[in-house]
Amino acid sequence: MSKIMRVNMTDRTVAYEDVPEKYKLLGGRGLTSTIIYDEVDPTCHPLGPNNKLVFAPGIVTGTNSPTSGRVSVGGKSPLTGGIKESNAGTGWSQLTARLGIKAIVVEGYPQDDGWWGLHITKDGAEFFSADEYVGKGLYEIYPQLFARFGQKVGIASIGIAGENKYSNSGVCFNDIDNRPSRYSGRGGLGAVMGSKHLKLIVVDAAGAPGVEIANKELFDQGRKKLLDALRSHPITKPGGALNSYGTAVLVNIVNEAGGLPTHNFRTGRFEGAAKISGEAMAEYCETRGGVGRMGHPCHPGCVIQCSNVIPNPDGSELVSVIEYETTWAFGANCGIDDLDVIGKLTWMANDYGMDTIEAGGTIAIAMEAGLAEFGDGKRAIELMEEIGKGTPLGRILGQGAATTGKAFGIVRVPGVKGQNMPAYEPRAIKGIGMTYAISTMGADHTSGYTIAPELLACGGDLDQFDRDKADLVRAFQYTTAFIDSTGHCLFIAFAILDIASGFEGMVEECNGLLGTNWTGDDVTRIGKEILDKELAFNRAAGFTPADDRLPEFMKYEKLPPHDVVWDVPDETLDAVFGE
Amino acid sequence: MSKIMRVNMTDRTVAYEDVPEKYKLLGGRGLTSTIIYDEVDPTCHPLGPNNKLVFAPGIVTGTNSPTSGRVSVGGKSPLTGGIKESNAGTGWSQLTARLGIKAIVVEGYPQDDGWWGLHITKDGAEFFSADEYVGKGLYEIYPQLFARFGQKVGIASIGIAGENKYSNSGVCFNDIDNRPSRYSGRGGLGAVMGSKHLKLIVVDAAGAPGVEIANKELFDQGRKKLLDALRSHPITKPGGALNSYGTAVLVNIVNEAGGLPTHNFRTGRFEGAAKISGEAMAEYCETRGGVGRMGHPCHPGCVIQCSNVIPNPDGSELVSVIEYETTWAFGANCGIDDLDVIGKLTWMANDYGMDTIEAGGTIAIAMEAGLAEFGDGKRAIELMEEIGKGTPLGRILGQGAATTGKAFGIVRVPGVKGQNMPAYEPRAIKGIGMTYAISTMGADHTSGYTIAPELLACGGDLDQFDRDKADLVRAFQYTTAFIDSTGHCLFIAFAILDIASGFEGMVEECNGLLGTNWTGDDVTRIGKEILDKELAFNRAAGFTPADDRLPEFMKYEKLPPHDVVWDVPDETLDAVFGE
Repeated sequence: MSKIMRVNMTDRTVAYEDVPEKYKLLGGRGLTSTIIYDEVDPTCHPLGPNNKLVFAPGIVTGTNSPTSGRVSVGGKSPLTGGIKESNAGTGWSQLTARLGIKAIVVEGYPQDDGWWGLHITKDGAEFFSADEYVGKGLYEIYPQLFARFGQKVGIASIGIAGENKYSNSGVCFNDIDNRPSRYSGRGGLGAVMGSKHLKLIVVDAAGAPGVEIANKELFDQGRKKLLDALRSHPITKPGGALNSYGTAVLVNIVNEAGGLPTHNFRTGRFEGAAKISGEAMAEYCETRGGVGRMGHPCHPGCVIQCSNVIPNPDGSELVSVIEYETTWAFGANCGIDDLDVIGKLTWMANDYGMDTIEAGGTIAIAMEAGLAEFGDGKRAIELMEEIGKGTPLGRILGQGAATTGKAFGIVRVPGVKGQNMPAYEPRAIKGIGMTYAISTMGADHTSGYTIAPELLACGGDLDQFDRDKADLVRAFQYTTAFIDSTGHCLFIAFAILDIASGFEGMVEECNGLLGTNWTGDDVTRIGKEILDKELAFNRAAGFTPADDRLPEFMKYEKLPPHDVVWDVPDETLDAVFGE
Repeated sequence: MSKIMRVNMTDRTVAYEDVPEKYKLLGGRGLTSTIIYDEVDPTCHPLGPNNKLVFAPGIVTGTNSPTSGRVSVGGKSPLTGGIKESNAGTGWSQLTARLGIKAIVVEGYPQDDGWWGLHITKDGAEFFSADEYVGKGLYEIYPQLFARFGQKVGIASIGIAGENKYSNSGVCFNDIDNRPSRYSGRGGLGAVMGSKHLKLIVVDAAGAPGVEIANKELFDQGRKKLLDALRSHPITKPGGALNSYGTAVLVNIVNEAGGLPTHNFRTGRFEGAAKISGEAMAEYCETRGGVGRMGHPCHPGCVIQCSNVIPNPDGSELVSVIEYETTWAFGANCGIDDLDVIGKLTWMANDYGMDTIEAGGTIAIAMEAGLAEFGDGKRAIELMEEIGKGTPLGRILGQGAATTGKAFGIVRVPGVKGQNMPAYEPRAIKGIGMTYAISTMGADHTSGYTIAPELLACGGDLDQFDRDKADLVRAFQYTTAFIDSTGHCLFIAFAILDIASGFEGMVEECNGLLGTNWTGDDVTRIGKEILDKELAFNRAAGFTPADDRLPEFMKYEKLPPHDVVWDVPDETLDAVFGE
């Protein structure tokens, strides 16, 4: 029987609770958002004693279902002030699920200055002092931790960013090679963990019972259908777009569409795009050799394998992974066209425990403020160093783009609800702009990846400039909330959008595991239930339609090369989740 | 015929407009809030091209009515994100009124890096380059400006704080001796002026027509009644409490009541209270002699004269003025009990162009964050110097207490709507806490000074701990909005609360000037109309009841010496302006 684990940081106790009936069919985002909705006062201070941090593997996580090793982390966000779910792909999640832990709820508040780790095994959980790991880079301490606890454990941790309570601070998980590189990055949940002085959660699944499956036959049938779909779709199949070039295969596509935000969202095309693309990364791996490889999985059992290990000129490891969002954030958005610099910045963000999207967006704002020239990679690295040192400038930058904009009086801050936009220009791609605006998470492409039909001819083939996309945006939000609950990577969406049996497979897997009889309608119903709770939380936290807006400058500043402004009517935005 | 002056900073043009019928009976806050409500998109960026800055003398400002030299400055606040009116007492306002200028509306956006001054005379207005005055202290440039434009002009200006677009930046006006010391300080309107690159407005009223009075006899009758009331009330009369000890006469009173916020609102009593009180200032003036004096007026025609000039040990000028709020903010709230240090900090705030309440609150947060020990005046001065230099730390501190709290991960930030609380502990004095919570301005005692009946037995004699004060709070808000529109200092409230003929006099003055037939009911009606517009603006800007709350920590942290928490029910707060 799976359990919910309560971790109380006031008295450092751990309790296991039976899973309440109402939580039994939930997992991942559905579970984190429901627990936060049920238990956290939406008006509480995100870093105060009344916030909670919830970790939840997805419904099928820990099984042999393909590409299902996601963990959702939830809480009230220090960055947005609203509810937050941020998920990562990591073996940590699979180990936790196999231990029969449906969720870990971290609550309470430290009574002294000490920092703590939690070591979870099949026999229970024990606290250990983590003081020796504080103030150090994650690349330094992860090997120490794996040496101490064993190479097969999973580690969740915060870095210096979370310790310093930066609003740009993620929760870091180990990748398949035990690097500190898989991130529930967005929304500053690392600072929530930091506010509770919980530095680490080490999970050891040796002897764990594994995940119970109610109807193995049905589960296997669904699993097979999904696997076949993933293996046949051109985006997700072995040797396909993601596997060959990683997520950064998007760079040239989005740039061509005039939607690659460049120089802090001043234009939609970047001259140096090709040099920071997935194709360029693949070339690095080929010509530099050594440890370099594309097609690297982030966790065991992923069939897409879109991660990478980028080599230095001498073949040693520069960093793993440079994602599309990362190469864009530190690259095009900062005017930097040097993958070695981008790799170094990515390594630093991983080492400090930060979200690369917000970090790159912040450096771009710093450039806008005159702290560096656009394109100055050397200065960008120096700015990142400030963050790691916790200097006053570092504290500004560590708080993210909105606070940096405020500190320097910058009007052009491309965020929504305090979270900086990711790598798609909303003026040039209207559906993703609508998604940024109405997402419960702040500007977030993963809350409804309408780029698929808008630019990739996947799940439809839409005009990127068409503004009549309220139904699309709503449907994507609901479906995504469901996928985020299954434990699957959102990238299964490409295959299940285009291949009906793949979608069926996802639902059948869940039915097989849970013993339910869900249909496609239930996917929408369950997704809507999750969104409704998140929306209710945010309303109670003080959000109104005025928060569901893109920044004002996008309404009056034309974006080259298409010379478009943000012109989706407010009424269209309000209609997405309105009556 | 009075006019509205439009100052367009895009093309640097000035236009005079007839006063529209609907604005004819408005002045001060009523006029600034109405113009902002009518013309500014509540969702605009406060520092972007679509915000406006409005200056408006009060209805009777420029006449010989007593204590009526206030100017209201209005705009969308960079500090709160809502509507803002902040008023100051200054001859500048009287000169502007005598020129027949009912309001100055500054709009548009600079197209280059130049800074500008505006020189207004009876013959029109001309721009002049203000580049030579930028980056310098106001104590340095005010004498230069008066030498250039004449000793009888009035000067409105921003300092380095406004140039740097700090959210803590006021609009500075000259006092009666032409010091840069009278502030529309709260809410960061200096940054709005700075965003428009308007450094100065110099007003020369030589040959001005003066203020038109519709019914001179009625006006004089009202003026006489109000004057008599002010001259007879123990708080406002010559030789009375305010005249003898300044506003800091409150220090010992509020401390005694256990409501003097100390060490960033950790307790309600300060050991060093007596040393920073108005009585201590009077003793300085007496024993040190020289230029020191209590009973100094901030503008010609004030009969209360509650300002002061505080001397150095050698009799030279330390600073003018140290108000109650100032001696508290830099004193008790920072644990500093040395008036010379407080005076130096006050001088620095004046020199940089900052609000002392927010500045002191910010230093207290910095102390909470460990950047200084509470009580360390030397370090407090160094922190202020950072602000003036615009270092990264200075930019954090310049943005005010909320941003400083965010940068350093501090949960105990005692603000509402991003504006730090003034010098009355809401846990110990419930009515002022309710006022902080529901004010359209953020935490603001001047939006409804319920301290009068709660601590001073003026206008009633209420229990400071009584929570049933929704009616009181609402009534004070409405009446205050009216007073803020007349051009009178809010301190006439003491006299008109207790002396009915004083209140009649205020209304008759307005009727005499405008040719109206207002009664006491109209005071409430007009006040309500102003509040309704401000509330509507804030709602459209995204404010909800969740913004009408005191910070969470006050609900769970007991305040000594009374060991009280904030316990006014949310429903009571919502009832103030609710249905």
